[in-house]
Amino acid sequence: MNEKARKYVDLFRQVKIASAATVDEKGRPQSRIINVMIAADEGMYIVTSKGKPFYKQLIDTGRVALSAMCPDCQSLKFSGKVRQVDKQWVDRVFEANPGMNEVYPGKTRDALEAFLIYEGSGEWFDLLSYPINRETFAYNTEEEAAGFEITDDCIGCGLCLPVCPQKCIVKGQAYGIMKSHCLQCGACLAACPQGAIRRLHP
Amino acid sequence: MNEKARKYVDLFRQVKIASAATVDEKGRPQSRIINVMIAADEGMYIVTSKGKPFYKQLIDTGRVALSAMCPDCQSLKFSGKVRQVDKQWVDRVFEANPGMNEVYPGKTRDALEAFLIYEGSGEWFDLLSYPINRETFAYNTEEEAAGFEITDDCIGCGLCLPVCPQKCIVKGQAYGIMKSHCLQCGACLAACPQGAIRRLHP
Repeated sequence: MNEKARKYVDLFRQVKIASAATVDEKGRPQSRIINVMIAADEGMYIVTSKGKPFYKQLIDTGRVALSAMCPDCQSLKFSGKVRQVDKQWVDRVFEANPGMNEVYPGKTRDALEAFLIYEGSGEWFDLLSYPINRETFAYNTEEEAAGFEITDDCIGCGLCLPVCPQKCIVKGQAYGIMKSHCLQCGACLAACPQGAIRRLHP
Repeated sequence: MNEKARKYVDLFRQVKIASAATVDEKGRPQSRIINVMIAADEGMYIVTSKGKPFYKQLIDTGRVALSAMCPDCQSLKFSGKVRQVDKQWVDRVFEANPGMNEVYPGKTRDALEAFLIYEGSGEWFDLLSYPINRETFAYNTEEEAAGFEITDDCIGCGLCLPVCPQKCIVKGQAYGIMKSHCLQCGACLAACPQGAIRRLHP
């Protein structure tokens, strides 16, 4: 895991409380609040019990998405792959999170299974700075393309400038978008008479 | 919407900051932090802009799941259906959330579209009381069955009692589970030699 990804994986652990989203057996999104129990170079560890729909959804799909709210209103999101790991990780989770002993006292922790989120990509997002700030990260996979870019078809007419909520379009021979400050709202794409703006995500 | 559902819809609005989970075009879970902008008898209103994957996922699937962390460590989760509503709701959202003017100043709010989460079911969950506490709710649809129940096949052997992390199994001619205090871990199901415990969710 590179340094940038590790920074955000550690931030997930520091915030600890995250939403974990999965897809259920009917293809519907489901989410619940969980704890990111351990952050490590190989990924993030979580636990759940075999009786829960969450367990079944993790096993069936091998995928989970996380989002979390950091202090000072910066948010984190992440989507990646997950696999069940050895039971010893349940004990390590209890060592790192002693409060778990109150929820699953003594041997009742046997109901739990541990999972490693072993790859995925995400984004840190700060809505309260002006312009807003964002940074993408990933581990064991590529960062996801997102947002918009202005192609060489740009004629510099400037119609995109006033519609940008964050004034993150910069003039030039071809205009450019400061991607780290872009809301990804798509207003510039809709305003461009040349079709010179390209969407980078699906 | 009944009184119980309204209580939790209002709680989502009070917490305001929630994770919104969707399913993307590849069937993967995706989530991000959003604001629940307006709570009303017809449901919860959210906004997003047309350029975002979130918008496309809401339109394509008509579904969203929310989860949120309340003060004092109680959590909320919800999964339901969503539809785009008239643009006038964007203005109402800005009236109810003046901070939106800093993110989308002036006419740039035109990039936004409003959505109503018009039905769904959810649960409030308090992990920090002992035993834990939970309550389900729903509007314009049924509450989801969840957890476990002990059927008449129970012979009262008591093997389920020590494995329950929350001591929420009560003795009786047939034993019972206090569903509002159940972690839904499934330990009792695994421990029952009679197959007398039934899982209520998929």
